[in-house]
Amino acid sequence: MTEPRILATYHITSDAHHIEQRALGLAIEQSVECPLDAINDPAILDNILGRVEDIAELAPGRYAVQIGLAAATAPAEPGQLLNMLFGNSSIQPDIALADIALPNSYLEAFGGPRVGLAGLRARLGAPQRALTASALKPQGLSPDALASLAHRLASGGVDLIKDDHGIADQAFSPFAARAAAVGRAVRDANAKTGGRTLYAPHVSGTLDDMRRQLGIIRNEGIGALLVAPMIVGLANFHAIVNEAAGLVVVAHPAMAGAARIAPPLLLGRLFRLFGADITVFPNFGGRFAYSTDTCLELARAARQPWGELNACIPTPAGGIMLHRVNELLQFYGQDVMLLIGGSLLAAREQLTEQASRFVNKVADYGQR
Amino acid sequence: MTEPRILATYHITSDAHHIEQRALGLAIEQSVECPLDAINDPAILDNILGRVEDIAELAPGRYAVQIGLAAATAPAEPGQLLNMLFGNSSIQPDIALADIALPNSYLEAFGGPRVGLAGLRARLGAPQRALTASALKPQGLSPDALASLAHRLASGGVDLIKDDHGIADQAFSPFAARAAAVGRAVRDANAKTGGRTLYAPHVSGTLDDMRRQLGIIRNEGIGALLVAPMIVGLANFHAIVNEAAGLVVVAHPAMAGAARIAPPLLLGRLFRLFGADITVFPNFGGRFAYSTDTCLELARAARQPWGELNACIPTPAGGIMLHRVNELLQFYGQDVMLLIGGSLLAAREQLTEQASRFVNKVADYGQR
Repeated sequence: MTEPRILATYHITSDAHHIEQRALGLAIEQSVECPLDAINDPAILDNILGRVEDIAELAPGRYAVQIGLAAATAPAEPGQLLNMLFGNSSIQPDIALADIALPNSYLEAFGGPRVGLAGLRARLGAPQRALTASALKPQGLSPDALASLAHRLASGGVDLIKDDHGIADQAFSPFAARAAAVGRAVRDANAKTGGRTLYAPHVSGTLDDMRRQLGIIRNEGIGALLVAPMIVGLANFHAIVNEAAGLVVVAHPAMAGAARIAPPLLLGRLFRLFGADITVFPNFGGRFAYSTDTCLELARAARQPWGELNACIPTPAGGIMLHRVNELLQFYGQDVMLLIGGSLLAAREQLTEQASRFVNKVADYGQR
Repeated sequence: MTEPRILATYHITSDAHHIEQRALGLAIEQSVECPLDAINDPAILDNILGRVEDIAELAPGRYAVQIGLAAATAPAEPGQLLNMLFGNSSIQPDIALADIALPNSYLEAFGGPRVGLAGLRARLGAPQRALTASALKPQGLSPDALASLAHRLASGGVDLIKDDHGIADQAFSPFAARAAAVGRAVRDANAKTGGRTLYAPHVSGTLDDMRRQLGIIRNEGIGALLVAPMIVGLANFHAIVNEAAGLVVVAHPAMAGAARIAPPLLLGRLFRLFGADITVFPNFGGRFAYSTDTCLELARAARQPWGELNACIPTPAGGIMLHRVNELLQFYGQDVMLLIGGSLLAAREQLTEQASRFVNKVADYGQR
């Protein structure tokens, strides 16, 4: 019984004379990784060796090559899947991993977002409108100072407050003290306003560290967590997703951007597959260089129907300003969470008011 | 008391009119990551905000920018260090991380290679000559078939045999069965030849998985292990190094190549810092595109005196053929381990003889 293959699409710089050989080389590299004449066993040639399924020219000198990879080489372990999709080829500068199609068994094994868009909407009591987020910055602030910012943001009504991803477990705001202080501040603000603001502290380090931090999160009654999957390793990210059942998992793209894996695939599909409920990514026109096409494809990959997986909420970020809210909701639709960090914090003493303005603009867009 | 800063050197594409602003933006991105006017606390501006230390033109339109990063933002946790060096900037296509200079406290905290070049030479009884390695391929072979290859390679006298990095814990050769079979085969061959060949199985998955596999390695009396640090997460790699005390740790560059971090820095310095005794990298002129300069700098970064850290052994690989041995030893010197995988295995029934040829060529080079 032949299992269905993983179909991986790569974009390769080459030319008409060499592309077939290059494609075969890629099929070998991402499977048996040795000269074919070193292989005695015909079953390996049939069942393990990658297969060139299609070659298409995207533009002069740029080709889309589809390789069928044997599922047997990549059991449902996220790191090994990444390894077999792109481990060695990541070192070859002429090639990028553009997209994948996975047999359903992977979707069942990995599970996707546990809470997802619908679950988060229910949790926030926001069935229709877009969602809002901000960030605690800058690192260096004490737990109490971060808690004060969080209280003011939550009082303004933002749906989610995350740590700046640079805040981890440093001496100036150790995880336990910060989680306690900020958790308490957000609870207080919610009690006063009737709001349901969530706090997502940044969980980092080894898998042991992340478990310890997750324990603190549960003890403090905190409802979410932020993780950088490419820093902690995809397998450990997925393990924490499993152990964080019931909590909202926010994925941050730190170290993801340079992987020469197309952002819609990595931050949209793969982070979603392994369990991100929310995927933060750099919006076009901000401090980063993603195009509008990339952003739209990323949002689509995160949200579109995919087997039985829940939708993941795309969260554009990175230099978004209040005056762009309508434009961005027009662009992404309302199944999105907009993240405004630094430019809200620049309001200083007016932080709560500015956060309210943000929240109202987003809510009002839904009312037009 | 001001702690010494981490000095990070980035290569940026820009122009004379914009580079100062770009450098400041980078210093902000890799520290406080918010507009400066959002920061109330002068202590953060003094002690946390990144500092542009130097800007130099490398070539028209390409600049080397040195940023001083506060050690307080990056305690000795490998993932957080990577995050603060390049987390967000990895997403910006105009920039690469070229080099770092770390305060000594990091070297002490991370510890570097536990066995190192000198330790491995002692273990192998090879004080002078270059070292030799090969790989078990292709994946898909059963534990017994892999054991048979290993026996033949060890009988030929190679110093180290590693799993192909694609071999993890798949159904066709589960880790436990493979470690047992290959471990036994290598021990048998060593008993017959008086050799000291080491076997390095590929340890992968979550930190829990890696610990379980490490336990099997110890039970089987196996002397080494192979890990892909960028797949498992640097913090978990370092944790396993600590737990693998006494074993030789081999680092594989899967997923490292695309990180837009200069290979000598990532595969040479950083893998060494976190505990790789051996760093495998793609040799020039093989299937990958590293230049001779890159390879030489990588070897230098791995080997050169660095605080009290042991030297890490550079292991060029990726399409090396027997006839290049002399050229490569001329190029790298003898403090190197040459890895020939596929082209040895292509010898099929003559594998032991071909392995012997490899071993003898390397040993003879030292005798000239």
